[in-house]
Amino acid sequence: MNHDMFESSPAAYAYPLLIKHLLHTPLAHAVDQEIVYRGETRLTYRAMRERLARLANGLSRHGASMGTTVAVIDWDSHRYLECYFAIPMMGAVLQTVNVRLSPAEIAYTINHAGAQILLLHTDFLPVIESIRDQLETVRTFIWIDDAGSEASAHTIPFADEYERMLAASEPAYDFPDFDENTRATTFYTTGTTGLPKGVYFSHRQLVLHTITGMAALASPVSGQRFHRGDVYMPITPMFHVHAWGMPYIATVLGVKQVYPGRYLPERLLALVRDEGVTFSHCVGTIMHMLLGCGDAKSIDLSRWKVVIGGGALPHGLARAALERGIDIFAGYGMSETCPLLTLAQLKPGSETLDLDEQVELRCKTGLPLPLVDLHIVDEEGIDAVHDGRASGEVVVRTPWLTQGYLKDAEASAQLWDGGYLHTQDVANIDPNGYLQITDRIKDVIKSGGEWVSSLEIESLISLHPAVSEVAVIGIKDEKWGERPVALVVLKPQAAAPASADDIRNHVLAFSETGRISKYAVPQIVKIVDQLDKTSVGKLNKKRLREQFAVTPEGKATS
Amino acid sequence: MNHDMFESSPAAYAYPLLIKHLLHTPLAHAVDQEIVYRGETRLTYRAMRERLARLANGLSRHGASMGTTVAVIDWDSHRYLECYFAIPMMGAVLQTVNVRLSPAEIAYTINHAGAQILLLHTDFLPVIESIRDQLETVRTFIWIDDAGSEASAHTIPFADEYERMLAASEPAYDFPDFDENTRATTFYTTGTTGLPKGVYFSHRQLVLHTITGMAALASPVSGQRFHRGDVYMPITPMFHVHAWGMPYIATVLGVKQVYPGRYLPERLLALVRDEGVTFSHCVGTIMHMLLGCGDAKSIDLSRWKVVIGGGALPHGLARAALERGIDIFAGYGMSETCPLLTLAQLKPGSETLDLDEQVELRCKTGLPLPLVDLHIVDEEGIDAVHDGRASGEVVVRTPWLTQGYLKDAEASAQLWDGGYLHTQDVANIDPNGYLQITDRIKDVIKSGGEWVSSLEIESLISLHPAVSEVAVIGIKDEKWGERPVALVVLKPQAAAPASADDIRNHVLAFSETGRISKYAVPQIVKIVDQLDKTSVGKLNKKRLREQFAVTPEGKATS
Repeated sequence: MNHDMFESSPAAYAYPLLIKHLLHTPLAHAVDQEIVYRGETRLTYRAMRERLARLANGLSRHGASMGTTVAVIDWDSHRYLECYFAIPMMGAVLQTVNVRLSPAEIAYTINHAGAQILLLHTDFLPVIESIRDQLETVRTFIWIDDAGSEASAHTIPFADEYERMLAASEPAYDFPDFDENTRATTFYTTGTTGLPKGVYFSHRQLVLHTITGMAALASPVSGQRFHRGDVYMPITPMFHVHAWGMPYIATVLGVKQVYPGRYLPERLLALVRDEGVTFSHCVGTIMHMLLGCGDAKSIDLSRWKVVIGGGALPHGLARAALERGIDIFAGYGMSETCPLLTLAQLKPGSETLDLDEQVELRCKTGLPLPLVDLHIVDEEGIDAVHDGRASGEVVVRTPWLTQGYLKDAEASAQLWDGGYLHTQDVANIDPNGYLQITDRIKDVIKSGGEWVSSLEIESLISLHPAVSEVAVIGIKDEKWGERPVALVVLKPQAAAPASADDIRNHVLAFSETGRISKYAVPQIVKIVDQLDKTSVGKLNKKRLREQFAVTPEGKATS
Repeated sequence: MNHDMFESSPAAYAYPLLIKHLLHTPLAHAVDQEIVYRGETRLTYRAMRERLARLANGLSRHGASMGTTVAVIDWDSHRYLECYFAIPMMGAVLQTVNVRLSPAEIAYTINHAGAQILLLHTDFLPVIESIRDQLETVRTFIWIDDAGSEASAHTIPFADEYERMLAASEPAYDFPDFDENTRATTFYTTGTTGLPKGVYFSHRQLVLHTITGMAALASPVSGQRFHRGDVYMPITPMFHVHAWGMPYIATVLGVKQVYPGRYLPERLLALVRDEGVTFSHCVGTIMHMLLGCGDAKSIDLSRWKVVIGGGALPHGLARAALERGIDIFAGYGMSETCPLLTLAQLKPGSETLDLDEQVELRCKTGLPLPLVDLHIVDEEGIDAVHDGRASGEVVVRTPWLTQGYLKDAEASAQLWDGGYLHTQDVANIDPNGYLQITDRIKDVIKSGGEWVSSLEIESLISLHPAVSEVAVIGIKDEKWGERPVALVVLKPQAAAPASADDIRNHVLAFSETGRISKYAVPQIVKIVDQLDKTSVGKLNKKRLREQFAVTPEGKATS
């Protein structure tokens, strides 16, 4: 506190919800706690405080001030964490650039956001070099020279280098108070069609997301928790929806944080082992890959808790992870929602359920976080009953949803309708309150007058031991309207090979027990080599439907 | 959700932080969970939702609307919980009347707050009857007819009775959206001098206090937690600082809640046993009384977690509770702060400390909650070093502090200075971040040029097996400036009697080991029959100093 704290101000009691206030707890409780980068660089929260001030002073020197957009391209690192705090704390806007977009799309998002400063890791020099002429707003490039990365030949006129900039800057900075509705972050969503769309979040929204997410993640009786004794490592990129907001939560908890750099399976597993990582989050595909990695067999994963998001958690994957001792469970959210909306935590008393029952609950979409006002509604906005069968579109209201899409009034108006954000996800809610997403609205299959959940059928097929990946899509059918078709990638190393008929019989068995309706059994199961994905690794069902469109005889063409 | 949710509004994404939003979680996860009153009345959260609507409709019929102050006088009950929600959710203001004030003070607070409606439990009829002529603003009295309470003769013209009012009201109410800064609650603090002062809190403040308190209470590794599997029972009256905000936290957690009515030790212990209570909070005096109650010996208290607040947690009490298996720890706050500021939770790794070390930490004032910006400062606002010795006044900034005292600009200006609320508590902070309050500013003892902590000496004296209660005050001394004097109440049933010299030697031993300075050893130890207390049961040190003022010879007069 500095000397002039006793000067009076007009509203002495005012306390705007600013990101800087998330630092009070770690700086009071946990200044000596570690922040680790790739097992090589080790800092403390005390050091981070000083580095935030140096970063702010350095960026100020390069022209950043209130409202400046500063774009960052880096692997997951302590530097990125510093940008999560220092850039918004200055009143500037952090743009987390999605490096999985095409170079042209990356240029589009940087221009569209109007970023003036770009922090750039060595590994992405070729990409930026290739689009440099297209960048209309960036006037300052700052190099992130990461030990071990080799710079390719380039012509980018770097004004500074990250560590040199920090070393040359003062270790104190008076982060100001300002309106809590000030924009803090922006990034771009990707769809299967059209240009990327920008979403954005304010300080107030991020603070509320952090504290509420922390409350929800901490409060179960035992498992599926994120608590002060954990060691945190993200495996969802930090450019993607604030790495689900978890780095902010980890910081308030004051836990040891481990940033893995680029996601190499062997390195991730080694960090889990060597740094004692106990809490992570990733998409199902990554967990699938990690469990299949040779190194995984020799590492004790029984203290590891992992939230799976970015798509449904398949039953087969949940079972495989649980059998390895991993406390796996689903979470749900999207770029537009900051992202956390629900977590598939077990309720008190459910800890004693057997494995099958646990798999069921952990693969549910989950229970809403506090302050999340969530409904499943029909087209007139009428709530569906919560019987685990009736479904409707998920619409939601929380204090941390994007206000709209950046400079896109039309898309914003479609997103927000009647005070609720429309997710375009179709779901049911069971009598215990668990949400279960069954489809995207545009992927819904209607067969024989009944809605078929492609996600449920995919999850059931994933339980077959020979199946590696699966997509279920609807194809037109004269008699039934639509029929489900399953596209299956088999495991190359499966113990026993499987035929399309084997897979179909596997699903048929669930129909015979009444678990699913007979309309839900895929008419056609097709073994394929690979499935088309979007830039963020999700199934591109639009493309798949085009590829596997049916002939008039009802046979898939591809 | 009703039909018109799809009508557009100017700021579709707006989500004010309103108390009604705290109900989303329990109504989504825990509708069948119980709310129990005295082990007799059992409701569910589902029933509570309907009762909140009925209560709002009933109060509307009696004239309550936006801004109306509704005062409540009741024991701790499900009804009081309903008032915590329904009254602010209507946009009205809940006044929780402190029944421990004198009748004249009660009249003063109701008039000062301008309450128009008064809900009144049978047991308080005589008090209100005695001041009825003095009540200037109340125009509607509503009777709370509690089974088993007998109404005395009275002339109060009740307009309705609580349960009859609910039964006669519609079970649906459209709780509106409004500005989150709308006042939600008010109540009055008590000091040793002057009239009670009103503090007040907005919806935003209570929501932020609830979610942040939940996050802090849930996030330890194992002990000192409040989680979804707990059973909650308050033992701090609901008229006192929102029962520390815990009923709101319990509701968001969706736990079973037990309301004990009037605090009778046997009943409280029976409820702990019969309802399986695992989480409570109370002042030290009550815990002292419960542990001394004959029934306590036969009850398993080893699953009970109890936060002690409203004053320091004495080492002797902490040890006695821990030996009974109670997970006891201190919390800190005040009427002006909503109240939670710190909690004396153990850090990860401290679970294995031995009993003595745990007692030390659990009796600390605690670690700040998230978003709490807390400093110990000198008169110029300069921070004291955090070495566990240097002390200063605790000043604080959080999003949930009263904006001032109701209709009292002068006192408000003293409370807020330079953007920080001044607690008038003197404290140190140790290198691990634990705050330790050593005194109230006005109770500080300065002896031989050193500050002596009256609270620390009291805590050390409390460790003596014959001591029941103790107060340490400063008396003037020509040579030393001030010297500490200890006033001690002995246990009537102590195994061995103790003399004043025994007590003094007990303290002297701590001085010889260097734990306290020699100036801190009380010059005089005086055995007394009782200690003067304020209306809320705290030591009235102002009165004690008057009673035990010294003669010129340095001897206490009383």
